[in-house]
Amino acid sequence: MKLKILGCYSASPRKNSFPSSQILNINGNNLLIDCGEGTQIQIRRYGVKFSSIENIFISHLHGDHFFGLPGLISTFRLMGRTKRLNIFGPTGIKDVMNLILKLGNSWIDFEINYIELKEKTTVKILENDLFSVSTIPLKHRIYTNGFLFTEKIQRKKLKLDKIKKLNIDESLYTNIVMGKDVILDNGTIINNKEITHPKEKDILYSYCSDTAYSDEVTDLIKDSNVLYHESTFLEKHINLAKKTKHSTAMQAAMVAKKANCKQLILGHFSSRYKNLQDFEIEAKRIFKNVVLAEDGKEFDIS
Amino acid sequence: MKLKILGCYSASPRKNSFPSSQILNINGNNLLIDCGEGTQIQIRRYGVKFSSIENIFISHLHGDHFFGLPGLISTFRLMGRTKRLNIFGPTGIKDVMNLILKLGNSWIDFEINYIELKEKTTVKILENDLFSVSTIPLKHRIYTNGFLFTEKIQRKKLKLDKIKKLNIDESLYTNIVMGKDVILDNGTIINNKEITHPKEKDILYSYCSDTAYSDEVTDLIKDSNVLYHESTFLEKHINLAKKTKHSTAMQAAMVAKKANCKQLILGHFSSRYKNLQDFEIEAKRIFKNVVLAEDGKEFDIS
Repeated sequence: MKLKILGCYSASPRKNSFPSSQILNINGNNLLIDCGEGTQIQIRRYGVKFSSIENIFISHLHGDHFFGLPGLISTFRLMGRTKRLNIFGPTGIKDVMNLILKLGNSWIDFEINYIELKEKTTVKILENDLFSVSTIPLKHRIYTNGFLFTEKIQRKKLKLDKIKKLNIDESLYTNIVMGKDVILDNGTIINNKEITHPKEKDILYSYCSDTAYSDEVTDLIKDSNVLYHESTFLEKHINLAKKTKHSTAMQAAMVAKKANCKQLILGHFSSRYKNLQDFEIEAKRIFKNVVLAEDGKEFDIS
Repeated sequence: MKLKILGCYSASPRKNSFPSSQILNINGNNLLIDCGEGTQIQIRRYGVKFSSIENIFISHLHGDHFFGLPGLISTFRLMGRTKRLNIFGPTGIKDVMNLILKLGNSWIDFEINYIELKEKTTVKILENDLFSVSTIPLKHRIYTNGFLFTEKIQRKKLKLDKIKKLNIDESLYTNIVMGKDVILDNGTIINNKEITHPKEKDILYSYCSDTAYSDEVTDLIKDSNVLYHESTFLEKHINLAKKTKHSTAMQAAMVAKKANCKQLILGHFSSRYKNLQDFEIEAKRIFKNVVLAEDGKEFDIS
């Protein structure tokens, strides 16, 4: 998995910072997570191919998470897109997009498949051979989901010394990494387990934005390789966080720790803070492996 | 009047160019004309005070002219705006804005006064002591209005030599420039016309975007000091212009010439053209005083 941050600030776009949007690349599939105003500018700026986006996940219907969507759909249309587009988001998203396109008499030539969500418990919304996506119900002022992305690790690592001793032909390696047994020339069946290491764990990326502090998500995001968690505020503004149902850097770190995540990316910063290092310092008191999101930053998740 | 171009490209925002949006300053009043996606970024970039905007004019409901509006309204809200906001635009604009705000549960603390337009002939939509605004019905794929902005010239220039001969006190000058007569100490009434030059003509700015070529607008925009006219295409793509109901640079120049405008600003360029100078060259064959719009460019209109 590769994660590219397109925008990671709360509220409205500014001269040099954009609201929530990310591209998660799983085995060549570009998934767009949230789509604040100006997302299409960032998609261009960071060289993401528009046509590579087939699935869009909208956490909730606050403007800084979806006001870029009508423009992006229009741009797809102008580019002559024919491929289907899946949009996962809260109930209501279809009506508003259809109304906007209807007012502009902008009939589109590709199918948009809206998967409208209203479930209050986790639900698997997408699954194929390579990955799956489940919702993470969050606590915000309006109906909001985070998303758990699971990359299925299918290939096993070879025990090369054993394989070479058995004189197994290289042409069979592709089958072996996929878990298949081998029949030797003399008819002996070699069990796959003898010549491969145990399959590694699936890779998990959890996206939690926007949300008040909640340890109910702990089970859902357990052992994530990377957790992106919103930290709109610092602890000194805990009252504002409570009032607006957002989190502080320390709270994000507590979630990462309880869920046994390997790395925490902080984002969705309020633009009131000039020095973002304070977020890192605050979170590191609780959880060591903390990094700050930044527009354009890329993360390898493995 | 001062005109600041915030965006002047057609279709979607790109890394370094924005869709239609302008700030027209008349005597300190900032009027926002169209509001493509990312307009609030440009408002920040070019140092326009958000709170100074009280009137927004939307020509039509294609995305590149209004997808920045929900985000701008949200930003007004986040900034604690209390002042009323007037939005002039095609019927339907109120419904879509209300639906978007309702989905986000984003109740706003200031009044938005929607003036929804459906008239197919020109109508005066705003008038005060300083200026007036009328619609310019245009020919596009959907219902579209341009706007004619008229700055009322109220102050007359003094005939200082005559005034001094008559020994008129300087404290009366303010009344005289506003057209009032003067009574001398000996009781003689001096008619205002004797001591002032004839009032200069009102200043006119016409905004015509988006539109197919149409000389029906000629009468409405007659003698404009400045005409901003869309020129999405060059003549070599006249067929595309006809098909999409846009104009070429040459057609824009023909309108400016027929309407006896003093200056023509070309804008709404298709991003297919790398060299915008071709627009200027093409238009200048018909009409001399042509300039190209450019994001961030400012024009004095007088």
